[in-house]
Amino acid sequence: MDFVRVAVIGAGNMGYAHSNNIRAGKVPGMTLAAVCDIDEGKRSRIAAEMPEVKIYSDSRELLAAHVADAVIIATPHYLHPVIAAEAFRQGYHVLSEKPAGVYTGAVREMMKEADTSGKVFGIMFNQRTNPLFKKAREIVTSGQLGLPKRLSWTVTNWYRTQHYYDSGAWRATWRGEGGGVLLNQAPHNLDIWQWIFGIPGSVRADCRVARYHNIEVEDEATIYAVYENGATATFITSTGDFPGTNRLEIAGDLGKIVLEDGKIKWWKLKVHEREFCFTSQKDFDKIPFDYEEISPIEKETGHLGILANFAGAILTGEELIAPGRDGINELMISNAAYLSSWQGGRKVNLPVDDAEFYSELERRVMQSSVKGVGESGQGSREYSERWQVRW
Amino acid sequence: MDFVRVAVIGAGNMGYAHSNNIRAGKVPGMTLAAVCDIDEGKRSRIAAEMPEVKIYSDSRELLAAHVADAVIIATPHYLHPVIAAEAFRQGYHVLSEKPAGVYTGAVREMMKEADTSGKVFGIMFNQRTNPLFKKAREIVTSGQLGLPKRLSWTVTNWYRTQHYYDSGAWRATWRGEGGGVLLNQAPHNLDIWQWIFGIPGSVRADCRVARYHNIEVEDEATIYAVYENGATATFITSTGDFPGTNRLEIAGDLGKIVLEDGKIKWWKLKVHEREFCFTSQKDFDKIPFDYEEISPIEKETGHLGILANFAGAILTGEELIAPGRDGINELMISNAAYLSSWQGGRKVNLPVDDAEFYSELERRVMQSSVKGVGESGQGSREYSERWQVRW
Repeated sequence: MDFVRVAVIGAGNMGYAHSNNIRAGKVPGMTLAAVCDIDEGKRSRIAAEMPEVKIYSDSRELLAAHVADAVIIATPHYLHPVIAAEAFRQGYHVLSEKPAGVYTGAVREMMKEADTSGKVFGIMFNQRTNPLFKKAREIVTSGQLGLPKRLSWTVTNWYRTQHYYDSGAWRATWRGEGGGVLLNQAPHNLDIWQWIFGIPGSVRADCRVARYHNIEVEDEATIYAVYENGATATFITSTGDFPGTNRLEIAGDLGKIVLEDGKIKWWKLKVHEREFCFTSQKDFDKIPFDYEEISPIEKETGHLGILANFAGAILTGEELIAPGRDGINELMISNAAYLSSWQGGRKVNLPVDDAEFYSELERRVMQSSVKGVGESGQGSREYSERWQVRW
Repeated sequence: MDFVRVAVIGAGNMGYAHSNNIRAGKVPGMTLAAVCDIDEGKRSRIAAEMPEVKIYSDSRELLAAHVADAVIIATPHYLHPVIAAEAFRQGYHVLSEKPAGVYTGAVREMMKEADTSGKVFGIMFNQRTNPLFKKAREIVTSGQLGLPKRLSWTVTNWYRTQHYYDSGAWRATWRGEGGGVLLNQAPHNLDIWQWIFGIPGSVRADCRVARYHNIEVEDEATIYAVYENGATATFITSTGDFPGTNRLEIAGDLGKIVLEDGKIKWWKLKVHEREFCFTSQKDFDKIPFDYEEISPIEKETGHLGILANFAGAILTGEELIAPGRDGINELMISNAAYLSSWQGGRKVNLPVDDAEFYSELERRVMQSSVKGVGESGQGSREYSERWQVRW
């Protein structure tokens, strides 16, 4: 196989951009075979612009037709694991948009199908291609920061207007979208958090509904997490701050890194702090350290990087940058955060209780004001810069 | 009256430095009349170095002698409100070291005496003399930042070695000191927080006991607070981080300020964010803003500034920089934080229930390992830089 034949399911903002980029030859190893959308307007647009591409209105028909080797799922969030599971059953490789789903229960079901199928399974965590996050991960996971103490991330530069929320009746509703900033914008950051620092043992959170907008879900959240090894994490996000902040600090017993303003500041202790603490003979003592600043040399390849990597994984066994299996990790954090907030801020242990979360979510879906299911925007040909890392 | 005759009660680290500085003429309007300490070694040192100064071993004797107009209380924390109350009853002006006490109940009793006496009552919140904090307060309280949204303060540059904690048997014990980083180091920051941003409506916290040291109390704490107007605050502090961080961010609907690295970064929106959010016709829109950086021109006058201001208040009615009445505010936050953490992270409303907190504290005091009451160090003549603002 020289090329992976790809079908894109969902031709809204992201699906339309993926389709265009694949068709334009921007993704080595991929050709666009088919596009599927339930919306007639979107199908007509594809038909007019991409006459050679097969078009479907129902994902089941598309999957049954076997005109592609792999599918890219860019539907509303609730459908990601449902369609992915069916695609695995039918023998497709799958690349899912983030989040992996709205609740962990559905994602676990889907992961079983992925395992059974043995197919390649990727997820669109495009921010993993950011060179600063990659470097930070290398520093932390290689032990250069020593034993982890604390991660603090303030990522409040996800500003959205009311107009944005009004642009689709499904947006920011429990029924249509399934969550707010934690489910739509922050999955990238929650994934980077767990990718670098691991999955916490427990989570408390305050998810603040309609703090800044007329919506059903939260547009501000503060999460506090504790790890089994004693480390902690604090995560603050919002779509109501302007200008927002994007500052990630990670401390360990060999120093500290701060990612901000497009660079890494790195304080490297010359003695382990834990050792120094118990051997120093002074009350107020300072540990000698070196300081370094790292600015990225390579580029953030973003969505195109993830697409090319997915094709490479199918064609040549390339290692996935963002394995689909990882999708459940950030979703466990956000599910746990919702559950904690809904239940008065109680400590929620991870892995979250799938059934308990689902039952609480369903109560909110039942009361949801939205009429229809999710439908995404018309989209432009290119990826909006909003999905890149911004500092 | 040309000079305020001052008696310093407690000749440990801070009391010894205050005594020396007053005696050396570094505080306009003050003369040193007497020093009191229960420890014979400390009294002998004062006798040898300051022969003209009257020396007492019991604060009650000193107060009864009326050789001074005002007292500076630099004893262990538990004694601050007890001695202050007695001093007010005897007609003295009082300047208390921070914190105002260990628990709010005792502080309220003392405040009644202060009110009844009509005497000048100050507290040693020397970080209020820092020009950046003063400017930040002016920006926020004058409304230049608009309606408040969020305060986030990471102040983890209170590093302490185990040797520090071992330097006095009372240190970092419930009985001897009454708390850890929140009661000893962070009161300065908690005061600046409430001074700039106000007192929150409720607090949740995780106060982590002996995370980094062999001690009885917490050396790391994370506080999350909510205001009645919807604003939130996050506060992270630790004595186990090196190199620590000192970064204070405050966001409002007219912009954001960040205090870090000895300067203020100030983003000033040209349109109220709340208005912009609901009038913009774009999904992803940006609010125009000006940016300014402020570096301090004036100096942080620190302890000497607070001492001179206290003398000025007595002699000429100068307005206090840090009124003693304010002392209870930061203590309410830390008392609430302890209570929340002791009770599984529950939301604790402010003002905290004095009796409930006292009862929970007493349980810990009863189990405390410490034998004696607090006794502070020998001290040097000057104020350690550790009590200045460090960035």
